[in-house]
Amino acid sequence: MLSLYIHTDFTAEQQAFLSGHLPASVVPFFANQTNDAALQKAAFLQSAVVFGNVNPAWLEQHPNLEWLQLHSAGYNEYEGLAWKNVPLKQLQVTNLTGFFGQPVAETAVAGLLGLYRKIDYLAKLQTTKTWVGGALRPQMQLLFRKKILILGRGDIAQCTAQILAGFDCNVTLTGRDTSAETLNNALRDADAVISTLPENKDTLLFLNQSRLSLLKDSAVVVNVGRGSTLDEEALLKRLQAFPLSGAVLDVTHQEPLPNQNPLWNLPNVLLTQHTGGGYGLENMDKIEYFLENLDLFLNHKPLKGLLHF
Amino acid sequence: MLSLYIHTDFTAEQQAFLSGHLPASVVPFFANQTNDAALQKAAFLQSAVVFGNVNPAWLEQHPNLEWLQLHSAGYNEYEGLAWKNVPLKQLQVTNLTGFFGQPVAETAVAGLLGLYRKIDYLAKLQTTKTWVGGALRPQMQLLFRKKILILGRGDIAQCTAQILAGFDCNVTLTGRDTSAETLNNALRDADAVISTLPENKDTLLFLNQSRLSLLKDSAVVVNVGRGSTLDEEALLKRLQAFPLSGAVLDVTHQEPLPNQNPLWNLPNVLLTQHTGGGYGLENMDKIEYFLENLDLFLNHKPLKGLLHF
Repeated sequence: MLSLYIHTDFTAEQQAFLSGHLPASVVPFFANQTNDAALQKAAFLQSAVVFGNVNPAWLEQHPNLEWLQLHSAGYNEYEGLAWKNVPLKQLQVTNLTGFFGQPVAETAVAGLLGLYRKIDYLAKLQTTKTWVGGALRPQMQLLFRKKILILGRGDIAQCTAQILAGFDCNVTLTGRDTSAETLNNALRDADAVISTLPENKDTLLFLNQSRLSLLKDSAVVVNVGRGSTLDEEALLKRLQAFPLSGAVLDVTHQEPLPNQNPLWNLPNVLLTQHTGGGYGLENMDKIEYFLENLDLFLNHKPLKGLLHF
Repeated sequence: MLSLYIHTDFTAEQQAFLSGHLPASVVPFFANQTNDAALQKAAFLQSAVVFGNVNPAWLEQHPNLEWLQLHSAGYNEYEGLAWKNVPLKQLQVTNLTGFFGQPVAETAVAGLLGLYRKIDYLAKLQTTKTWVGGALRPQMQLLFRKKILILGRGDIAQCTAQILAGFDCNVTLTGRDTSAETLNNALRDADAVISTLPENKDTLLFLNQSRLSLLKDSAVVVNVGRGSTLDEEALLKRLQAFPLSGAVLDVTHQEPLPNQNPLWNLPNVLLTQHTGGGYGLENMDKIEYFLENLDLFLNHKPLKGLLHF
């Protein structure tokens, strides 16, 4: 028998689907079926496999955990934690790879195109039944043939580039191998910068004041990576004090964004509230991904999305 | 000397550019430089060439007008008017062809993708600093691989199909040659219908109650053609009383949309206020288009966008 602790907040229907597709030897425990924290913790400590982003501190207390399947692509919370300081025997940690590329890319383009075609502004006008109509037309922009700089070369970046090809955009992807000179020239040249960067020691505040200062006044900044990779104070200063066309932020330093944060009020900022990865079948697809990986795990084969810390 | 009456509402800068590029033999009169209606009318009646969408009724009073360059792609107001009833000698009417394809297509996709990624809803949430975040994710949809039916085969339709290719959509274009059976099946099958239809006797209320009733409950209706080609009452009924995922309306029967029209308040309706054709350089590009056509006109060559009524 194998005990499986499920931390992810699945609906009853999704739980039934998952349970119905587990081998008979696997016994699931769904954490959200109880409010008893002690019971949850006990079930966790008895489980060899965990599905979902449990409190990273818990891992130190469970040296016999064999496999942790995260329900996210990001894993920075788990990096440099327990398995460096604690004698964990054989823990494998896997994330969801190639999973959020399309949904996040669609939100990145929806946000950028939305600013260009003033969809956000038109939606706000609708709440007060205000017709502006033709007077808005000179302020509209086209995504057609724009120069787009994408930070990153992963799934999100690839999907975004694929979508932008339909708009005949001139797309540049950059990564660790890109020289400072090439990057700086690309920043100076870009009509929009789309950051897809994950959080790690190399990406913290990557879009800092110095890099943001290279952007054209007409540029748009899009962040669908991690909030920590962008210097929000520097972005705010450029949006408020120096011209910058706008920003689309799916991620911010603090989420939920605090009420007093001035980003809420800036007219050319669109906040998509970390919904970028979402889509109707997201949880069902996560379950399918896990079931495929579970099959590999039970057959002692290499897991999909295995992280190397 | 050739007198040119300019009806389009150009800025002083645009007027200077146009004047600076006219041959010395052409004398422009900019209607918006005066509020004197009698003076405008007198200038119109003296002009051999008109640039801009003047009152169609005026044309009957000016049998010597030689060329009318419309500043729109649509020309239904001018169809079946003066030149059928009045002995106009040699009037040529030209519209702007291949001009609004890309901007209108970008608004169509921005609206549809905006509904799928909830950009309109997120923009509204931002006005009240309301964080919903992850709870929205199950409601998000993807444009990826959706079945999109485009009504029309013109520039807007072609540009829209080109953009949707980047989302790997399954796109069907229909036209006059499409059989009723094929069209009805496509309506039943579509995740979204994008109408790019111009107004003419064949397209009036083309998307009527019967055709709208074929759509799936999850379908989205996008109208970037003419408001008159869609039965708004029938659409309203489907949006209110029967499930229908949403609608993006760049055009409506009445524009500006009256305050009491229930479309303003429907949560899944996005009104883009006939901004679809707009972009920053729209007027400058119209001037360039006119100047090219003027050169053809002065050299007695066939004009671009010549309409056959």
